[in-house]
Amino acid sequence: MITLTSDFGYEDPYVAEMKGVILTINPNANIIDITHGVEKFNIRMGAFMLASAAPYFPKGAVHLAVVDPGVGTERRAILVQTKQGFFVGPDNGILILAAQNQGIDHTYELTNPKFMLSKVSSTFHGRDVFAPAAAYLDIGLKPSEFGPEIGDLVVPEFASIKRKNGSLIGEVLHVDSFGNLITNISSKEIAQSKKVNIKLQNLSQNLTFGKTYAQAKPQQPLALIGSHGFLEIVLNQGSAATKFHVAAGDKIEVIPT
Amino acid sequence: MITLTSDFGYEDPYVAEMKGVILTINPNANIIDITHGVEKFNIRMGAFMLASAAPYFPKGAVHLAVVDPGVGTERRAILVQTKQGFFVGPDNGILILAAQNQGIDHTYELTNPKFMLSKVSSTFHGRDVFAPAAAYLDIGLKPSEFGPEIGDLVVPEFASIKRKNGSLIGEVLHVDSFGNLITNISSKEIAQSKKVNIKLQNLSQNLTFGKTYAQAKPQQPLALIGSHGFLEIVLNQGSAATKFHVAAGDKIEVIPT
Amino acid sequence: MITLTSDFGYEDPYVAEMKGVILTINPNANIIDITHGVEKFNIRMGAFMLASAAPYFPKGAVHLAVVDPGVGTERRAILVQTKQGFFVGPDNGILILAAQNQGIDHTYELTNPKFMLSKVSSTFHGRDVFAPAAAYLDIGLKPSEFGPEIGDLVVPEFASIKRKNGSLIGEVLHVDSFGNLITNISSKEIAQSKKVNIKLQNLSQNLTFGKTYAQAKPQQPLALIGSHGFLEIVLNQGSAATKFHVAAGDKIEVIPT
Repeated sequence: MITLTSDFGYEDPYVAEMKGVILTINPNANIIDITHGVEKFNIRMGAFMLASAAPYFPKGAVHLAVVDPGVGTERRAILVQTKQGFFVGPDNGILILAAQNQGIDHTYELTNPKFMLSKVSSTFHGRDVFAPAAAYLDIGLKPSEFGPEIGDLVVPEFASIKRKNGSLIGEVLHVDSFGNLITNISSKEIAQSKKVNIKLQNLSQNLTFGKTYAQAKPQQPLALIGSHGFLEIVLNQGSAATKFHVAAGDKIEVIPT
Repeated sequence: MITLTSDFGYEDPYVAEMKGVILTINPNANIIDITHGVEKFNIRMGAFMLASAAPYFPKGAVHLAVVDPGVGTERRAILVQTKQGFFVGPDNGILILAAQNQGIDHTYELTNPKFMLSKVSSTFHGRDVFAPAAAYLDIGLKPSEFGPEIGDLVVPEFASIKRKNGSLIGEVLHVDSFGNLITNISSKEIAQSKKVNIKLQNLSQNLTFGKTYAQAKPQQPLALIGSHGFLEIVLNQGSAATKFHVAAGDKIEVIPT
Repeated sequence: MITLTSDFGYEDPYVAEMKGVILTINPNANIIDITHGVEKFNIRMGAFMLASAAPYFPKGAVHLAVVDPGVGTERRAILVQTKQGFFVGPDNGILILAAQNQGIDHTYELTNPKFMLSKVSSTFHGRDVFAPAAAYLDIGLKPSEFGPEIGDLVVPEFASIKRKNGSLIGEVLHVDSFGNLITNISSKEIAQSKKVNIKLQNLSQNLTFGKTYAQAKPQQPLALIGSHGFLEIVLNQGSAATKFHVAAGDKIEVIPT
């Protein structure tokens, strides 16, 4: 099984070209799209998407992810072997969150031309380097055949959480298509008190800490631990992002009350 | 075979999480997307999409549909067994049109925790309740193992057609991405006279009743029975919705001439 | 293996209906979407998408493509057998680029009602004519069983390249979702000099001819041969289409310097 994550969108033939390459090498591959709607060049958003979905796939799955503004430069192409499966993509951080969650065993640089297309373009390694690697891994080739083992992966700056006088300062990781604000504050870090005071952008108010959207009235806000285990600020049947003019990357301060 | 219909969109990892859950339970599942572009929270639009596509799938197919503004509330999770296959989703009406078309044999409430993820979130039953149920049904488990049989399903208010002095008053069910106006007036209810007088929004004119788009000149309107058997108002090579400022839900009056 | 290309978009049930028809005839079909995001009625864009992706699929693949403003008229439904596989769709040019690249062996008109749905609508031949044909071809039926062999295909006017006083005058074939401007000038026609002078819309400047996006500074333009072998004008980490107000169809003049 091979999953695909990218910022290629749904209008261009790029994703299909990757699938064609995979299926030419391995006609029995089961290919599942995670998303191709990652914001262009947004490595952190891609990393979050992949880390959200990867835990739900079977052991042994191969996860190919390409958000690759540095394609064709010296940035390395890598293969990460974890305790649950494999990750293939550029060494720019897109794989790191999901791979670390599974426990990294080995990392290899993709250098063996036997497992690339015969002509590698400078602008589309998703098709010419990563797709063949994923297909051969899925067939069962040993990770060590793809190139030398390496140690030091690129880790992008992901927001960390700060504590200050009893309040938590975090960040909006992702605004989903419903307008839910998914933060980087996990359920382990925040006691689920009955109410929390939230400060972000033009919102500064006490919110009920609930379990389901419907605990708020329609179009009213609520704090809850979402389906990925992170604090979310949501609107019942509406978009919190639109109402409060919030975007990914915005700071959020949470004061338990 | 399992089909998926939702309002989750294509940018978030939610659909992939459902697929991962299904494939972990049943690695051989053949999963087909009907659409994930249902307008957020629009149960009637989801019901229409599912009812349009379901008839074309093989006998025995499992149809999972989630447009679920009441997730986490007392609304029931259900499994509907029909003469042609199975439907899984919230008991809010999204399944009802498609299931009734096939002839409902039995309906069960999904209560057996054996066929749910071990940790069920309050906000994402698509992944935690419906996806496992669909996967186990597809494997061949008996519907009665999922929970108690129930009788009274929720039926949302779908528009009905009125007759008044020889005219038909219906509603625009759906505006498709071409801008075609698909109404709830079926081919059984309207005699296909040569011309019809149509009144909707800022349109009030006699239209030719044709068979194909090309019977009108480019950018000119036409009435026809569309590929789902309903009256459609269309523009040849253009968008009737844009030209006449019509949206789903708008009233339409049809007077055969 | 069957690929699908269309202008049906991702919000409507039309693509799923085609897949349901295919899987009812051939439950083992492996169906891959090339794209359903072709601009409505834009046959040339569909032809370009299909021609870009088809070369990456295995020998024997069946490619179904539907951008079909003339559906229901006298335009023929066809099946093209090439040295690499099969193409199914309307005879309006959408298949021609991809099929010619593979070398056309035979072309047949789809007239045999045995390989259509029993009720053929006048507005959706993708579902009622082309999907069954693709499914039966994928099962292994002989192309000659679908209808009579024909010779003269419709060839739409694709832009050709002109040479004038040492400069090349071509056209922007496609603006991809990154905003890259893909032209119809292939790598065979342009010597990759170090710099080229580019004239298009409000851009008239010397550009470096590079190999990868990152050779330009962020938001700066570059000329390169893209992953399909055509000259592209791109911005590093930005949209050339937005910056230079360029759309598909715009003229481009290239003067090697």
